[in-house]
Amino acid sequence: MPPTLAEVPAPTAGPRPQPQPVLDRSAPPRVVIVGSGFGGLYAARQLRRAPVEVTLVDRRNHHLFQPLLYQVATAVLSPGDIAYPIRAIFRGRSNIRVLLAEATAVDLQRRKVHLRDGELDYDYLILAPGSTHTYFGHNEWEASAPSLKSLEDALEVRRRILLAFEKAERESDLARRRQLLTFAIIGGGPTGVELAGAIAEIARQVMVRDFRSIDPREARVLLIEAGPRLLPEFAPDLSAEARRELEHKGVEVRTGEPVTYVDREQIRLNGQSIPAATTLWAAGVAPSPLGRMLGVALDRRGRVPVNVDLSLPGHPEVYVVGDLASCRDKLGRQMPGLAPVAMQEGRHAAANILRAIAGRPPRPFRYFDKGMLATIGRAAAVAQIGPLHLSGLVAWWTWVTVHISYLIGFRNRLVVMLEWAWSYLSYQRAARLITGDIDAVYPVREIPAESREAR
Amino acid sequence: MPPTLAEVPAPTAGPRPQPQPVLDRSAPPRVVIVGSGFGGLYAARQLRRAPVEVTLVDRRNHHLFQPLLYQVATAVLSPGDIAYPIRAIFRGRSNIRVLLAEATAVDLQRRKVHLRDGELDYDYLILAPGSTHTYFGHNEWEASAPSLKSLEDALEVRRRILLAFEKAERESDLARRRQLLTFAIIGGGPTGVELAGAIAEIARQVMVRDFRSIDPREARVLLIEAGPRLLPEFAPDLSAEARRELEHKGVEVRTGEPVTYVDREQIRLNGQSIPAATTLWAAGVAPSPLGRMLGVALDRRGRVPVNVDLSLPGHPEVYVVGDLASCRDKLGRQMPGLAPVAMQEGRHAAANILRAIAGRPPRPFRYFDKGMLATIGRAAAVAQIGPLHLSGLVAWWTWVTVHISYLIGFRNRLVVMLEWAWSYLSYQRAARLITGDIDAVYPVREIPAESREAR
Repeated sequence: MPPTLAEVPAPTAGPRPQPQPVLDRSAPPRVVIVGSGFGGLYAARQLRRAPVEVTLVDRRNHHLFQPLLYQVATAVLSPGDIAYPIRAIFRGRSNIRVLLAEATAVDLQRRKVHLRDGELDYDYLILAPGSTHTYFGHNEWEASAPSLKSLEDALEVRRRILLAFEKAERESDLARRRQLLTFAIIGGGPTGVELAGAIAEIARQVMVRDFRSIDPREARVLLIEAGPRLLPEFAPDLSAEARRELEHKGVEVRTGEPVTYVDREQIRLNGQSIPAATTLWAAGVAPSPLGRMLGVALDRRGRVPVNVDLSLPGHPEVYVVGDLASCRDKLGRQMPGLAPVAMQEGRHAAANILRAIAGRPPRPFRYFDKGMLATIGRAAAVAQIGPLHLSGLVAWWTWVTVHISYLIGFRNRLVVMLEWAWSYLSYQRAARLITGDIDAVYPVREIPAESREAR
Repeated sequence: MPPTLAEVPAPTAGPRPQPQPVLDRSAPPRVVIVGSGFGGLYAARQLRRAPVEVTLVDRRNHHLFQPLLYQVATAVLSPGDIAYPIRAIFRGRSNIRVLLAEATAVDLQRRKVHLRDGELDYDYLILAPGSTHTYFGHNEWEASAPSLKSLEDALEVRRRILLAFEKAERESDLARRRQLLTFAIIGGGPTGVELAGAIAEIARQVMVRDFRSIDPREARVLLIEAGPRLLPEFAPDLSAEARRELEHKGVEVRTGEPVTYVDREQIRLNGQSIPAATTLWAAGVAPSPLGRMLGVALDRRGRVPVNVDLSLPGHPEVYVVGDLASCRDKLGRQMPGLAPVAMQEGRHAAANILRAIAGRPPRPFRYFDKGMLATIGRAAAVAQIGPLHLSGLVAWWTWVTVHISYLIGFRNRLVVMLEWAWSYLSYQRAARLITGDIDAVYPVREIPAESREAR
């Protein structure tokens, strides 16, 4: 049974107890890692040559390169380009076992991870379950406005975008056609900016010669942000630059306007209803619900507060990394929910476990800030690297270089590079496949007899 | 309303009426093509520069290179490698319109194709809807033993194969583990042979270093054929060679044993029950149900008998090509259900339509036989090209060359070649992604407490 809140000691800021793992010295220590996102994956890699038995647990059989997920959603890349089987990553590492399973809770007292269908004992635990999307209490919007977290999400978003053009091609009613060609993206963070830029480009450049009845350039792409500016994590000049670039690509940017209602036919904001057949949700991210199963007090945003060495207060054998961790590094900076943070935290937590096994004290975490990047389509991006603010083509090339160099697995790097090169040169979209039921999203409509000839 | 059987004239063997299309001479003739498989696609290509208005109707937005579908199912290739958006193929051809729609019937008298949500008028019609799978009256087997016809099918088969290994890795009960590692393929035609060979190779070569508890080489791959030999369309010596090659790869081949029962846990044949958690169906192909909607008499196998010029008897403006056509060419040979037949028939039907428009009589179809190929995994295949019988590496290279050269779209050719080269050199399976619910196939089982430590 997980401990109740009363049993859990408050986070300690001062000196903390040394880890005293109860180890059977005849067997190597068992390290369980929950989650194979950037945090879990980099933790496992750090342990791949160490005298520990690692079990990496994930609900998926693949590591997903999430920063490029929007490119699968917009039919630039295929799922296989940005996802890689976890087993294949660690195939030669006999001390790393991969388990396709879902962790449901952690028993901190008995040192067990509960799975949906079993349990795992650990000597050390690294929790890296990542985050999920949230609709801020409006879960009923999810069916009308899907999010982008998994490959399945991306394929569903792709299907909706492509089907909207297909249905518009067959639609003779002008208002309905306009509705089918209106794409509303809710949330002006990096994902929203990337989606809006990519959809505008598809419509204006890729699809132009594909259709006969519609002009895909008529597509209306709306990017809606409740706050005062796009990319609030970036400096204001880069927010303004991103907005300029998007508007140049034909995106209609609306800031300071919270969405008050969403269904399959429309969105509402500012008391105004906008007919839109395709709405995508890029507004809310919440830490994994696994945090709530720990029985510790969470911070305001639902994250688990950890010590400066990334361990759970009172549990030096448990580390929390990535989006679930609420953490300040040794310089006192609050860590943002970014891939490089998760990678560095995962590596650091694993290193601290190896130090503990060797009888040495843990080290505090220090984030090496490589900056932030967001892309706005072909040949446009914004980058903020310390005091350096980049935009346009330079930022875009920085973005391409950084992302490809981080892709796991040589084959992916090569193929993604080729796919991009080809896509860039030809404007083709080979990944533009619709799978699944073509009528699942838009109900079949009777076409009025008098307009049939026009089609 | 489609004509009743009584209204339809019997197939004519002798001289036939010249086409007398009712054309509005001010507008180009409207040619509707149903289906974008090999038959429909090659028909449309033949018409791409002709003074006709072509409408190509398909339920899918992509042309599928079906001969390589089993490679998506066995995680060698990704969907995007073997499927290509139809719009992209004809993007520059303003006389070809692509419609994502499902044809449900044909009104031969009023010259209309009924869609699920509308209708289309035609002056000329080419029906190329292809075939579907059949369970010979045992439709209840479909959920337990999926077939391989669409990309969705292939992803489902892939999911089942990969999940079987994943579940086996976590299974401590030996009998259940054996059941999870038993793969039964029903049907010894080319698809069955290809699937069995590929699964045996995955287990023996690709997965070996990926798992810790199981040895994937323990996998039992059964290929079951009701008839007396594998690949009945090929010469007996090649059937024997295919069997030898499969057995060399570890496949258990059973011929002359019809399957009498299939469920999620087992198959039965010869009164014997074999526990098998993954069963795949490669046994039955039936022509598209659209044939029955024509209101003409079908042949014994449900195909539409056509004239030697591929037109429908009594309807010189309607052509039937590919798997739905029951056809003898001018040399009197019955046409088999092969991709090259559909391609040549599609091209021929389109050419005859252009001849009719020019006021010239149609030409009888003559099949240029390029031979038959079936692959049995890496570096093994059988080929029958006229009197020439090839097997082993030579046949495999023939197979690779032919298939790559037929892939539509330059990008695919290049990428598929690279994927193969990489897969061949590295034994990696980058496409080994499981999408969809991991618990959809195998119910979650309680693992006995005493065996938990062993995992």
